[in-house]
Amino acid sequence: MKKIGRREWMQKGVTSALGLSLGSTTLAKADITGQGEPEILQKQAWQTQLGKPVATFGYGQPAVQEANLQRRESPGLTRVSAASVAFTPLQGLFGTITPNGLHFERHHQGWVDVDPQKHRLMLNGLVKTPQIFSMSDLMRLPSVSRTHFIECGANTGLEWGNVAVPTVQYTHGMLSCCEYTGVLLSTLLDICGADLKKGRYVLAEGGDGSGMTRTIEMARALDDVIVAWGMNGEMLRPENGYPLRLVVPGVQGVSWVKWLRRLEVGDMPWASKDEAVHYIDLMPDGLHRQYTSIQECKSVITTPSGGQRLVHKGFNNVSGLAWSGRGKIKRVDVSFDGGNYWKTARLETPILSKSLTRFNIDWVWDGGSAILQSRAIDETGYVQPNIRELRAIRGTRSIYHNNAIQSWQVDPDGEVSNVQVG
Amino acid sequence: MKKIGRREWMQKGVTSALGLSLGSTTLAKADITGQGEPEILQKQAWQTQLGKPVATFGYGQPAVQEANLQRRESPGLTRVSAASVAFTPLQGLFGTITPNGLHFERHHQGWVDVDPQKHRLMLNGLVKTPQIFSMSDLMRLPSVSRTHFIECGANTGLEWGNVAVPTVQYTHGMLSCCEYTGVLLSTLLDICGADLKKGRYVLAEGGDGSGMTRTIEMARALDDVIVAWGMNGEMLRPENGYPLRLVVPGVQGVSWVKWLRRLEVGDMPWASKDEAVHYIDLMPDGLHRQYTSIQECKSVITTPSGGQRLVHKGFNNVSGLAWSGRGKIKRVDVSFDGGNYWKTARLETPILSKSLTRFNIDWVWDGGSAILQSRAIDETGYVQPNIRELRAIRGTRSIYHNNAIQSWQVDPDGEVSNVQVG
Repeated sequence: MKKIGRREWMQKGVTSALGLSLGSTTLAKADITGQGEPEILQKQAWQTQLGKPVATFGYGQPAVQEANLQRRESPGLTRVSAASVAFTPLQGLFGTITPNGLHFERHHQGWVDVDPQKHRLMLNGLVKTPQIFSMSDLMRLPSVSRTHFIECGANTGLEWGNVAVPTVQYTHGMLSCCEYTGVLLSTLLDICGADLKKGRYVLAEGGDGSGMTRTIEMARALDDVIVAWGMNGEMLRPENGYPLRLVVPGVQGVSWVKWLRRLEVGDMPWASKDEAVHYIDLMPDGLHRQYTSIQECKSVITTPSGGQRLVHKGFNNVSGLAWSGRGKIKRVDVSFDGGNYWKTARLETPILSKSLTRFNIDWVWDGGSAILQSRAIDETGYVQPNIRELRAIRGTRSIYHNNAIQSWQVDPDGEVSNVQVG
Repeated sequence: MKKIGRREWMQKGVTSALGLSLGSTTLAKADITGQGEPEILQKQAWQTQLGKPVATFGYGQPAVQEANLQRRESPGLTRVSAASVAFTPLQGLFGTITPNGLHFERHHQGWVDVDPQKHRLMLNGLVKTPQIFSMSDLMRLPSVSRTHFIECGANTGLEWGNVAVPTVQYTHGMLSCCEYTGVLLSTLLDICGADLKKGRYVLAEGGDGSGMTRTIEMARALDDVIVAWGMNGEMLRPENGYPLRLVVPGVQGVSWVKWLRRLEVGDMPWASKDEAVHYIDLMPDGLHRQYTSIQECKSVITTPSGGQRLVHKGFNNVSGLAWSGRGKIKRVDVSFDGGNYWKTARLETPILSKSLTRFNIDWVWDGGSAILQSRAIDETGYVQPNIRELRAIRGTRSIYHNNAIQSWQVDPDGEVSNVQVG
């Protein structure tokens, strides 16, 4: 077999794939530009040297060229004491797994460094045998490993009234997805002999200084709630509740109590400060809804998204995320003209319940203006609303549970910006 | 609802869950030891202080208490120049995803720091239109995201003759699993117009100084091979091929060419040094097998495993990993008596093709000696062999493709060690 040498290569007018158009099957031929490609014809420094033996750090780090991709605090949010948020950079992520180093953070009194040797979990209340578990006790119980999304109830919360922040990191970045490992809460309730007649709720209490307490309905507690120590294969990160947090699939992040220290079985909701005063939906008439904890079906295009710039006319893969607190994603439609015409996107498999689903769709950008939107439908048949439909019911005074369709405007110069349409 | 105060709690003799026995359903009641649990009754420092606002680093790190869990070079292997291995600490991992910071490394001339702006991929040979792709060209093509294991062909290679290394990190730690994102190789072959009559093989060439080249059969290239840039949501790590590597599901790691710079379509295998001289199976008769690239069905118990120590008599969850280069795992059986009696383990879902599957099984340790083994069966019906069966065919002179059943011996003092049985 003959290999093409440098001279021959150049004579043949080997081309750079700078422009692609759609072909008969998926993508057929590339637009041939005939430009030289010196980078591949010349030996690069890294090809002629002895590399480094193994990563010089015991725990590996991203490439130095990727240092800009990090979680960030929003310039639009005021940090109150140590109550703060760091957003996941969704614009630079692929697939569905969020690397632990980029998982979003939301603290109510800052994150704390808990000693796992001293950490304990108490289970008390309406149970036959109250118990105290060490980490070692918990970690030898039957465990499960499951992938779920976590979304803060206030995600996209700044966008109720108008466009407030420019990028998907700040509009949707209180969203992450991990493979969690832990013991089912139902197993612990079984061990302690929970009273399932009187005991209709479980209180979860965090071990930090914020006194975070949240009520979980017993039906949910017995279903798929996990008392978790593992996150994407390794122990939880300190800022995500190390060494123990609650995983409440489909429910807003505040209920995923971090540094979990106590679970109590009771006969009525606790109406604690973080469920009676905060994390409530203020309605147009001035009343508010409590215990609206499920994250409804939602989606967002992450590539391209606000703040990015398209540089190639022609073929561009458009990609994003869809999720539902009610189960699996059934379909995602994408519009390139602000919602007039919709086309069904390709969903990456496996499609898991209460987890992120990655979608992709072909797009040939003609170099003109466009408005990109995605609309998810979950297995219950629920259709993600547009912002007009959502405001008609919920008004603009809420902070929480904004699951409206996101619109990104592409200008002829390729600039992508956050707009509200519909 | 009444809460139990400290005094009442102590009066009631609240207990610590130090011992658990199997109950009627799954786990019923705990063995009650009645010991005090001062840690939960006393406020800990982290409960009374203001925490840190958000992680002080842009890219998060594991808890300081987990610093010991890192990839390591084996004391049993000599580092030749920059050709080296760092093993994944499977004994401390959960679920199936390997965090990028703990992904195993195998370098043939060390890892190199490649500039993604300058990196190019050439596709040439038996194609209509040879092409050169920049990273930007590739990343706007239709992408897929799929989870696959990667295992070095030499994983468990030191164990052919006898027990050689003490822990699962060194017996099985050249094994990792990630969600990869990239463009299907079939898409690139389509774009360049590969000659599918004459072109029966694809050569993959790496961009480092080792001249790594591997042959991929065309049927496989057109099936599920990915030209990948994403790894668990973010860009590949430098030591894993940043910015571009081949993902060849089910095939040994050496074919997952890192720093991928060239693909060539040809009409016969290349018989390059890393497929004609290295990565071959030396047989008992002195001949060798070439191109045995598929990683056959295999499993290993990771908890408990060699070097660990059981501290609790009674209930202990036993957990491990199973995988097959031929497809999905169908069943995993576990023995606690060195292979006389087998019990079927519980498999975590989803069970994905050519990916890791986590299994768990209940075990009540009576405090005596035990030999723990796992045996995986894949969807083709292939059963993982024991070391005696494997040696009968393959002898003891090979380095590669040892997929024998692993045995861990538990001593009455709880010490777990690597033994060979069968």
